Amino acid sequence: MGLIVQKFGGSSVANAERVMNVARIVTDTYKKGNDVIVVVSAQGDTTDDLIEKANEINPKAAKREMDQLLCAGEQISISLLAMAIESLGFPVISLLGWQAGFNTNSIYSNARIKNIKTNRLQAEIAKHNIVVVAGFQGINRYDDLTTLGRGGSDTSAVAIAAALKADRCQIFTDVEGVYTADPRKVDNAKKLKEITYDEMLELATLGAQVLNNRSVEMAKKYGVELEVLSSLNPIPGTIVKEVAKMEKMLIRGVTKDKDVALVSILNLQDTPGVAFKIFSKLASKNINVDIILQSFGRDGTKDIVFTVNKENGPVAVELLNDMLDDCKIVCNTEVAKVSIVGAGMESHPGTASKMFEALYESNINIQMISTSEIKISVVIDAEAADRAVSAVHKAFIPND
Amino acid sequence: MGLIVQKFGGSSVANAERVMNVARIVTDTYKKGNDVIVVVSAQGDTTDDLIEKANEINPKAAKREMDQLLCAGEQISISLLAMAIESLGFPVISLLGWQAGFNTNSIYSNARIKNIKTNRLQAEIAKHNIVVVAGFQGINRYDDLTTLGRGGSDTSAVAIAAALKADRCQIFTDVEGVYTADPRKVDNAKKLKEITYDEMLELATLGAQVLNNRSVEMAKKYGVELEVLSSLNPIPGTIVKEVAKMEKMLIRGVTKDKDVALVSILNLQDTPGVAFKIFSKLASKNINVDIILQSFGRDGTKDIVFTVNKENGPVAVELLNDMLDDCKIVCNTEVAKVSIVGAGMESHPGTASKMFEALYESNINIQMISTSEIKISVVIDAEAADRAVSAVHKAFIPND
Repeated sequence: MGLIVQKFGGSSVANAERVMNVARIVTDTYKKGNDVIVVVSAQGDTTDDLIEKANEINPKAAKREMDQLLCAGEQISISLLAMAIESLGFPVISLLGWQAGFNTNSIYSNARIKNIKTNRLQAEIAKHNIVVVAGFQGINRYDDLTTLGRGGSDTSAVAIAAALKADRCQIFTDVEGVYTADPRKVDNAKKLKEITYDEMLELATLGAQVLNNRSVEMAKKYGVELEVLSSLNPIPGTIVKEVAKMEKMLIRGVTKDKDVALVSILNLQDTPGVAFKIFSKLASKNINVDIILQSFGRDGTKDIVFTVNKENGPVAVELLNDMLDDCKIVCNTEVAKVSIVGAGMESHPGTASKMFEALYESNINIQMISTSEIKISVVIDAEAADRAVSAVHKAFIPND
Repeated sequence: MGLIVQKFGGSSVANAERVMNVARIVTDTYKKGNDVIVVVSAQGDTTDDLIEKANEINPKAAKREMDQLLCAGEQISISLLAMAIESLGFPVISLLGWQAGFNTNSIYSNARIKNIKTNRLQAEIAKHNIVVVAGFQGINRYDDLTTLGRGGSDTSAVAIAAALKADRCQIFTDVEGVYTADPRKVDNAKKLKEITYDEMLELATLGAQVLNNRSVEMAKKYGVELEVLSSLNPIPGTIVKEVAKMEKMLIRGVTKDKDVALVSILNLQDTPGVAFKIFSKLASKNINVDIILQSFGRDGTKDIVFTVNKENGPVAVELLNDMLDDCKIVCNTEVAKVSIVGAGMESHPGTASKMFEALYESNINIQMISTSEIKISVVIDAEAADRAVSAVHKAFIPND
């Protein structure tokens, strides 16, 4: 018994039947004696449909007007969910982002929450209402509507949980939790009972699209205990918290990221500051560089190899060709990044070699390596990515 | 040059092409040096679609949640229209009902405007922005969204024009103005240049669905000059004002209303207060009685005949059967009401007889007659309604 914040994404409320399903999950939680605040996204394809309507009229529309438009999406889903909960006989009220007190800055389409004025939320909870809140949206100091950007509803839910010191923030998705690898592709992939915020952040960055990073960062900052679980099969999912039990596993999971391009600068004249110039140029064009490898060549030249998002690969090559005259620049988009994540690995020196051994035995060539305290990543040929994940997973995750 | 309020209904903004058409009308007005505030309804069938979504989930949903849901409709249309105006290169901003300052009472789904806090509207006009305002909606003292009920966008437009003392309020529809009769049915039906508020109110009540009555009443109260004109062919329409020129016509128009049922109570015992009891019973069930006719019979009995809306006919009969024992009650729904409206008729005593003569010559039997200062109505057989309108129109409206 306590205060539970529950968040449901667009696919969970895509039609009348699913809205009723969510209403049952919410009221089951309420019936157990909990106060419940529910955060919902726009239904299914609503946001995409609205964007299409806008593009038909003005593809370069002011972001303020786009936000005004898109906020209608959650407005529809919250009132429908409230009606569904009402039909089950429970007291309920829906609140738009601004009604729930979400104050943001004025960066339309990607606003940051400044604070939540919680008086309305608290008043509705005091009246024992189930409160349905529009995710993804808020209001700025000019009384204009703003949206929080991609994954914004997760952030809305965590922000409410933090502001009201909720006992738990449950993020309902279409998977049953966080797995050691993609369960559709890897036999014996296991659902984790617990995972730390930092591990979750690494997994999210590495392509396990379960939770939005901003929301995990916020949960970490305010100590909000998250649970990732399925709206279609609401059994216990994965808890995300500060310290998590390791469950006899050295690592938490194996991930694959195919959105990678490998850019190589060969025979670069090794003059002082040349690396700085290259990477500040890329940064100035908002190109995020992930792994960097530098090797010394002969005759005062060196090679620099780095990875960027796939779409930024050709852009980076063009930028660098304009800047660097007498070196060869090539881009390989047929690569993938395979990573293992786990907070325990830094105290187990054999982790990296165990991963490399698994890849070697599968005859997979490693092109780059990058390590952090809780992560080891390798860049390999894209075609070998699935085999690599299976081999590494088998080496680390015990069979049942 | 001045301040013009323009209102466009749902069919005028039903798709991208029509939204662009409205944007051109608005910016043409702005280009002539006017300040422009545009009030829009939800696109085409949006409101009906949202109601259907709600009914699928909960046909008896709380009206507060219905209003929360329906307000999304105009939110979509205002932002799209703002984008369209922006694409033509004009400064523009969209405002939701509450952003535009519409404060209402708390009668969800049928709220009344209490006042408009005009500071935001005035600030945007001062910045030379075209302001696009969501019609039909406002906010109550609890910061909850409300809607104004049927025809609410007309009311929103007139309320803004009244609050800001606009020079004119233009109501764009799919007809080119107010006609002396339905131009699709009556040859030689003429568009009126001017009409008084009172005449417009009678015409609206009588079934000429051009302007919502509440908005005409408000325009009359605050002296807002209205113009009814077409969004597809924006030539001068019909002006609605306090005093209107008569244009050589004795009447303003001929209308037909088929939504009529004639209820007859025959052989009613003529005891004191019986008529009062009958009509207070009907009023208590919210049945509006229009025309009443009473005739004295023999042996201390009388007959009472009255008209109500068609759907209320059988309801009234059932109510009265429960209440009155020994009289015969019949309901005839195969009737229609044909009326002539014109502020000048009270100073022309021959008007009524001219109308009756036209009907007599067409061999149409009159069942009931009702007159007011600016209106004469007759109840006739429904099958004769179109012939009656043509005959009366021909008698009163001069040929070109």
